[in-house]
Amino acid sequence: MAIRITGTGSYIPSIIEKNEDFFNHQFLNADGSAINSPNEVIVEKFKAITGIQERRYIKDELLNSDIAFYASQKAIEDAQIDKETIDYIIVAHNYGDLKHNNQQSDTVPSIASRVKHLLKIKNPKCVGYDLLFGCPGWIEGVIQAKAFISAGLAKRCLVIGSETLSRVIDKHDRDSMIYSDGAGAVIVEDDHREGGILAHETATYALDEAHFIFFGETNNPEITDQRRYIKMYGRKIYEFALSNVPKALKSCLEKSGKSITDVKKILIHQANEKMDEAIVQRFYKLYKMEMPKDIMPMTINTLGNSSVATVPTLLDMILKGELENQVINEGDVILFASVGAGMNINAIVYQH
Amino acid sequence: MAIRITGTGSYIPSIIEKNEDFFNHQFLNADGSAINSPNEVIVEKFKAITGIQERRYIKDELLNSDIAFYASQKAIEDAQIDKETIDYIIVAHNYGDLKHNNQQSDTVPSIASRVKHLLKIKNPKCVGYDLLFGCPGWIEGVIQAKAFISAGLAKRCLVIGSETLSRVIDKHDRDSMIYSDGAGAVIVEDDHREGGILAHETATYALDEAHFIFFGETNNPEITDQRRYIKMYGRKIYEFALSNVPKALKSCLEKSGKSITDVKKILIHQANEKMDEAIVQRFYKLYKMEMPKDIMPMTINTLGNSSVATVPTLLDMILKGELENQVINEGDVILFASVGAGMNINAIVYQH
Repeated sequence: MAIRITGTGSYIPSIIEKNEDFFNHQFLNADGSAINSPNEVIVEKFKAITGIQERRYIKDELLNSDIAFYASQKAIEDAQIDKETIDYIIVAHNYGDLKHNNQQSDTVPSIASRVKHLLKIKNPKCVGYDLLFGCPGWIEGVIQAKAFISAGLAKRCLVIGSETLSRVIDKHDRDSMIYSDGAGAVIVEDDHREGGILAHETATYALDEAHFIFFGETNNPEITDQRRYIKMYGRKIYEFALSNVPKALKSCLEKSGKSITDVKKILIHQANEKMDEAIVQRFYKLYKMEMPKDIMPMTINTLGNSSVATVPTLLDMILKGELENQVINEGDVILFASVGAGMNINAIVYQH
Repeated sequence: MAIRITGTGSYIPSIIEKNEDFFNHQFLNADGSAINSPNEVIVEKFKAITGIQERRYIKDELLNSDIAFYASQKAIEDAQIDKETIDYIIVAHNYGDLKHNNQQSDTVPSIASRVKHLLKIKNPKCVGYDLLFGCPGWIEGVIQAKAFISAGLAKRCLVIGSETLSRVIDKHDRDSMIYSDGAGAVIVEDDHREGGILAHETATYALDEAHFIFFGETNNPEITDQRRYIKMYGRKIYEFALSNVPKALKSCLEKSGKSITDVKKILIHQANEKMDEAIVQRFYKLYKMEMPKDIMPMTINTLGNSSVATVPTLLDMILKGELENQVINEGDVILFASVGAGMNINAIVYQH
């Protein structure tokens, strides 16, 4: 039995928010103090580290479940399947549906139920649930789909990663420039061909690390409402990721029985360009190798960090030929990897 | 291989909110119109239908993740296991951590990461995630644990149902009297003895049913903030549950190979006493039988409807001898069942 991805789809939101659009923001340090640089310098530094030039936001009238639905429609079409044959709809997200200008996350019913509703799937045996696992949620959803198929509970699953971080950002925090909106979806199913998911690795670090990414108040001390926003300790995350992600990738690759030279692509969560490069470089260093050119396709420059959506969106774009100089051929061994809130780390070795 | 529950724990919040405590509430219809009955009559009618006399709320300083942690500690102690040997922490909830007097759900990091943090579990291979599936979330978590164990991904899982509905209720809605807070937890693991989980059944109905339970504004038209609360179409849910839950129970029992006369207890989600009775009566009617006395233990009278927490709390109380005239003996076949937001229905046939 091979458990494979047989269709992909993604939704790229239509609003382009450029770095220059942040020039008139009032950025402050976490303690509320002023930053002694003009915004042009702050934004330039930000770009040098993260690689982000622009990011995407959804229109005011849309919700997270809407874009999850759009990506799902495309994945179902791409897989050429009857939607009524889907056994599970697994939606990875972290903040539910957030209306424009509203601070309440709406998670009842689940986003999976909303997507199923929008897809007009009638079959009650198609079970929809939401999975909260930080940014690594979509990869974790694929791992769970694999478990359900292996255990005989399912044959075909729709796994979605969908997030609208534009609705939980603090405009007074420089980190707000990182976050983006997006949705990616895949069909995972039992397939007679060889390959598919060869191995996986997952870990949760929840001692001090549990609160490296958290919900916190604005940096602006003049705003005294209790509203909270996505917040992170960037430096701590960087060090944590560099210490732990390369080892997790190596462990996963060893389980798969494939060698480092078999790896054709690494699709890593688009968190921060410099951090992603450092992770992959250190991974190759564990094998005393240089990181190969073009091994790590990136979309962060124009799409930002859309949390759970980055990896499935990246996969979809490569398979649809939408990313320059990036191709995945049949039989290619690729690595999926992610790190994020929890702190969670996961990886999959996948043969296309 | 038998997959069994080897330890249970629950947390019953300390604040008792009696029906009389609602006498001074201003209840309104969904359209904002006045209800032409004194509150004493409204509350008496409510009690006659739901069976609820009082319910439990957590103290202001506590969070959902705190009570999930308390229940987990007890389950780990009851199972007599080393916490570092847990492979998965699965937390079913629907609203995350809600601070007292704050309308924002906090779900980053996941409640599972917070519980793992509070339990001080060091092992990174212990993976924590949150599962959103309406009130049937805890039963679904047990089904997922079974899948992970069957697929060889895990040997031992901690499955928690924890919710603080007191923080999402509209005081102007009569239905606010239904909701309660609570947490229940179990250890699910591979066990050499016979029995355990014999069969399961799950379904998601997401056509019109998707929005039977939803997030909506207060019934009081004078309050014009956008804050939303848990809301439901009670009559529609009642009819839906009566049409679909008995059939799901029968299908699950048939899969298990056990007969209706083997069933010793039905632990059903404590949603509403009259509805639960009608469901179980109709289930027996499918076998042309009367519902046996004491088959359906109830805690709703004093504990209210604590969503995902009702079934594991009920199980824990019975196993610990805390429920009068209710015993589960070794070898007894019991049914777990739930219905709730999604709309989701699930059931497990379990041999103790």
